[in-house]
Amino acid sequence: MTRTVFFGIAGSFSHIASQKYFGGKVNLIPSKSIKEVFAHIADGLADYGVVPVENSTTGSILETYDMLMENNMHIIGEVRLKIHHALLVSGKKVKIADIKKCYSHPQAISQCETFFSKNPGIYPVFAQDTASAARFLSENRNKENAAIASLQTAKLYGLSVMAQSIEDNKNNFTRFVVIGRRQNRTGTKASVVFAVKHVPGSLFKALRPYAKWGLNLTKIESRPILGKTWEYIFFADFELKNNFSDFIKMLSEMKEETDFLTLLGLYDRGKTYET
Amino acid sequence: MTRTVFFGIAGSFSHIASQKYFGGKVNLIPSKSIKEVFAHIADGLADYGVVPVENSTTGSILETYDMLMENNMHIIGEVRLKIHHALLVSGKKVKIADIKKCYSHPQAISQCETFFSKNPGIYPVFAQDTASAARFLSENRNKENAAIASLQTAKLYGLSVMAQSIEDNKNNFTRFVVIGRRQNRTGTKASVVFAVKHVPGSLFKALRPYAKWGLNLTKIESRPILGKTWEYIFFADFELKNNFSDFIKMLSEMKEETDFLTLLGLYDRGKTYET
Repeated sequence: MTRTVFFGIAGSFSHIASQKYFGGKVNLIPSKSIKEVFAHIADGLADYGVVPVENSTTGSILETYDMLMENNMHIIGEVRLKIHHALLVSGKKVKIADIKKCYSHPQAISQCETFFSKNPGIYPVFAQDTASAARFLSENRNKENAAIASLQTAKLYGLSVMAQSIEDNKNNFTRFVVIGRRQNRTGTKASVVFAVKHVPGSLFKALRPYAKWGLNLTKIESRPILGKTWEYIFFADFELKNNFSDFIKMLSEMKEETDFLTLLGLYDRGKTYET
Repeated sequence: MTRTVFFGIAGSFSHIASQKYFGGKVNLIPSKSIKEVFAHIADGLADYGVVPVENSTTGSILETYDMLMENNMHIIGEVRLKIHHALLVSGKKVKIADIKKCYSHPQAISQCETFFSKNPGIYPVFAQDTASAARFLSENRNKENAAIASLQTAKLYGLSVMAQSIEDNKNNFTRFVVIGRRQNRTGTKASVVFAVKHVPGSLFKALRPYAKWGLNLTKIESRPILGKTWEYIFFADFELKNNFSDFIKMLSEMKEETDFLTLLGLYDRGKTYET
């Protein structure tokens, strides 16, 4: 059976993304860090990995890009989750007035500002991530304790849902990538990383082939190269047209206009699921 | 006296950035959130604000861009901090073997993985941010407690530094922007936000004027518009040349190639300080 390692403990958003992408037909293994996900694939302990790459509110997860480049791994798939935060308690008899402490990740807590300002008696307590908060609650069942986490963690850890979607921002999406050792041969999307000289107009020239071949750019992001103040690399995603050979030609023309260019992955555009 | 509101409590990195930028000649006011920083300037309670906009390891702080656009505020300055993490304890007599709990933000804790793996007896406990962890330690002085925070917080909260620079990544920078109600008239850098139609080659066309006028692009980042899957906005930073009128011409040509373009700010390139 295929083995896939995901970032975080059982119930993490990467775990949910893995279940949605593979549909339960794989062995799913938790991991402590994004770095460990890549290490397990490199060691052959797992065939695939699932890690977050971009959030609509907080931006790109640059560590994932770093690890892709360092480990020479490839993006072979993607999946998007719409992030909702639920208020979880240990049992159905718990009332909102009972709750004294609510555990969650600092970011999830700050995304539920309205909830905390309406309930000043509930004190936020910080946890490593939302799944850890739910697990902690399941191990410390007490009517004074609550957690902010996904509906999936409620099911997994046997918790009760007191309120759904308590987040302030209802349009919070995270995009996850599926990582593997081997490059796909085709796909409807491509991710690349490239560098150009830091001279006026260099990025413009690097983008000329994409304009010429009529592809759609769905993401571009510059990143300073650490320790080299004036040099940048760029991450870009393209949507491919039916004619795959156009993309190959574009790539080869882009290589001529850049200092380096690496194809991070070819994959099919992913679906979006609720959490 | 000028009043500047910064993100976080006393000792936060935005607080340190404010002190470096203004050199102590202002009244500095803490705030709970990036949103509150902008609200205080809009209300006239403060003249300026200091908030993070970009970290070399974790990427852009998109909330700052959202707030700039929502509140029609401008970037009037920038400052960079090199982020170091120090191990702080309550007094000089505390030994490493005494420590049982170490408080900090989850991100700071994950950036000190080597320290925790070398000291398995020290249990990480999560705090809202590094400054809160230092403040908590100062209020709970106990040889079993430690915090990971900056050297500046040690001084501010009367704590002892047991170890400096325990972070794994020695090249971690955060860029802060100084925000105000009025646009500067000139500067060596410019930040813009623009949108183009989602058709092949549209970004390429929008960038043509920058290539033509020979300016340097020091940042570009696409961001999906929430709720509109196929539309994007772009954030870009340019370095201006001596001839300011070239920049004005470029801006007006870029406006013709984009659906909208707003000048977020004109400011002088900021200095980098240690923490």
